[in-house]
Amino acid sequence: MYPKSLEDLIISFEKLPGVGKKTAERYAYFIANRFTLEDVKTMSLSLQNVKEKIHRCPTCGFLTESDFCDFCLDSSRDQNTILVVEEPKDVIAMEKCGRYHGLYHVLNGVISPLNGIGPDELNINSLVKRLEDHKVDEVIVATSATVEGEATALFLSRIISPLPIRVTRIAYGLPVGSSLEYSDETTILKALEGRKPIK
Amino acid sequence: MYPKSLEDLIISFEKLPGVGKKTAERYAYFIANRFTLEDVKTMSLSLQNVKEKIHRCPTCGFLTESDFCDFCLDSSRDQNTILVVEEPKDVIAMEKCGRYHGLYHVLNGVISPLNGIGPDELNINSLVKRLEDHKVDEVIVATSATVEGEATALFLSRIISPLPIRVTRIAYGLPVGSSLEYSDETTILKALEGRKPIK
Repeated sequence: MYPKSLEDLIISFEKLPGVGKKTAERYAYFIANRFTLEDVKTMSLSLQNVKEKIHRCPTCGFLTESDFCDFCLDSSRDQNTILVVEEPKDVIAMEKCGRYHGLYHVLNGVISPLNGIGPDELNINSLVKRLEDHKVDEVIVATSATVEGEATALFLSRIISPLPIRVTRIAYGLPVGSSLEYSDETTILKALEGRKPIK
Repeated sequence: MYPKSLEDLIISFEKLPGVGKKTAERYAYFIANRFTLEDVKTMSLSLQNVKEKIHRCPTCGFLTESDFCDFCLDSSRDQNTILVVEEPKDVIAMEKCGRYHGLYHVLNGVISPLNGIGPDELNINSLVKRLEDHKVDEVIVATSATVEGEATALFLSRIISPLPIRVTRIAYGLPVGSSLEYSDETTILKALEGRKPIK
């Protein structure tokens, strides 16, 4: 009943995560009514570019349009520290805090036997190769604070243990700005375990 | 920090209503990771088509890619009844109930002095012209049950009153499946006023 191109666009939007029929219709209408031809061309082009140009950096697994990603190419970064994350998004989140100047390694997921994801499905072999080929002092494991994230951290610490490399895990605790009252038991427990002297 | 095409796509998504940075990133990642090249090409093409091909039907104001919309071209529909709605979406909603077989007229909004929208900003003159040029028995006003929707309905009934045409308003009342307990006072009042004999 909708004109075909609008219907097609709605169907495309419905494929996105968390987007149902109504939201897809809303997006499609908005584009039909408010986007300029310029807006639409830009979006259309970047859609194709994302698919055609972007690939994983062969060294670290982050996304790039070049042969290697910006982080791996940046020789001013500390080449002796590698921070391991689950997803490319985590790299961006870490960069926002502005304090980390080492390299990254993106696993592309976590070990999750229930979902059939073992170490071989992740970007782990390339990490081991990297550690064997280059001098690295420290691997910081920044997988998330979930059962799978923990299992992955443990697995990494085990396979790295034969190498003379320090493996650390980022800290758990109360998020800044939150109070005990609204924190779950596990977070409070971890915050207690991770307590540090202040005097 | 993201590759340029991914960053561009995120910016495009952020322009959509209700889409913030996080959601835009989620959509863009999903496209990079899960969409096939085929999916992306379809989406890209329909984006451009929506902007380039779709326009308002000159008769009723619904969206179309042809000279006139499917409803206006369909001679099997009852040509003597016109149902007036605010937006193209409302036409689709009405069609879903499957009981209305007349024509439509899309106002493209409601009278809303606060937002500077008067009758001249809406698709009203073309409705009057339609009613003068063709034999129409009934105009069903299906604008929404809001202050603006009501004002628009009243305005329409006034300007149509000189013509020998019946003007009706769709019914208000409790939505099917809801209970008195969870309905607002105005809806309950309208439901009471609109009561019908059952025996």
